Amino acid sequence: MTVLPPALELLIEALGALPGVGTRTAERYAYYLLKADPAVAGRLSTALVSVHDKIGYCQKTFALVPAGQDLSDLYTDPGRDKQLVAVVAEPFDIVALEKIGQFKGTYHVLGGLVSPIDGIGPEQLHIAELIKRIDEDKVKEIILATNASVEGESTALYIQQQLGSRKVKITRLARGLPVGVDLEYADQITLGRALEGRTIF
Amino acid sequence: MTVLPPALELLIEALGALPGVGTRTAERYAYYLLKADPAVAGRLSTALVSVHDKIGYCQKTFALVPAGQDLSDLYTDPGRDKQLVAVVAEPFDIVALEKIGQFKGTYHVLGGLVSPIDGIGPEQLHIAELIKRIDEDKVKEIILATNASVEGESTALYIQQQLGSRKVKITRLARGLPVGVDLEYADQITLGRALEGRTIF
Repeated sequence: MTVLPPALELLIEALGALPGVGTRTAERYAYYLLKADPAVAGRLSTALVSVHDKIGYCQKTFALVPAGQDLSDLYTDPGRDKQLVAVVAEPFDIVALEKIGQFKGTYHVLGGLVSPIDGIGPEQLHIAELIKRIDEDKVKEIILATNASVEGESTALYIQQQLGSRKVKITRLARGLPVGVDLEYADQITLGRALEGRTIF
Repeated sequence: MTVLPPALELLIEALGALPGVGTRTAERYAYYLLKADPAVAGRLSTALVSVHDKIGYCQKTFALVPAGQDLSDLYTDPGRDKQLVAVVAEPFDIVALEKIGQFKGTYHVLGGLVSPIDGIGPEQLHIAELIKRIDEDKVKEIILATNASVEGESTALYIQQQLGSRKVKITRLARGLPVGVDLEYADQITLGRALEGRTIF
């Protein structure tokens, strides 16, 4: 005896594959899609079909680009400084940095962070391509814009080591108190970094 | 200049239509689907296409059934007592009750709860069909298995009023302390109900 129709079970199962989505959430999504205008499920279905066909990676920066386009607009734009490169872990980090609207350099997506526990070694990241790019584009500064996590720090350290004697300036994002956060609520490590990195007032 | 390929923007937008999913979560889902085996997105896409075509409602109980099937297996099963009906708000409530494995009656899905704030009046729920069913199937007991919320309570009350002088027994799920929860963490209303509904030890 089936409590739910097989088509719905399949949908719940497929939605349950999304990260952080358990059965309850998948059921809620599925039931919402069932009750909503069929166009909502239709749009999602269509978008899913094209996600692999219509999206590619920039050959130089590994940012996401429309399929068939070799280079990211953020790289080819003449208004962008190719000698200033922000190194990020994932393509969405670019979205976060672009939202500030301050950065006029280019990006380099590593495609992850060094994480032995997940079996990700530095050779799986686009580090060799970064070094090649530093040489080719005569990059003056790279900003290591990786997460303030163990993986982010060790990846940054690894890249620094790989760059060896190259004369490129290596910077990283400041660590300190998040804006709007009370000092008493900041964790000890953040507070320690904020103290270490204190600036002249 | 596009930071993300249009195909990805579309997917993020479509995923953002899911209940409780904001842009950040939609981005996380989209990026996961992009990085995962294309079969994952493919399965979801296929499941979405058939959700409206392959799922229908039981003519009698309004439970979800495979399209083309008139009556729910849970209703037609001769092992199920048609004279005992659990009245629930949504089809997934049946899944929750079936998981207990104790209930041998049948179900009736209202298709929502009375909620003036959402513009849902009693006439939009399957209450008239419930009353018809009570008469036709000579129902002896209906269990009002609606949520212990304002909407759940007022829907239950409305149904009780509609049943008028019919000799059907009306019960509802017990309110009280959730099993495994410390008394000191229970909210006052729950505790009040637990006290009111106290049973002989």
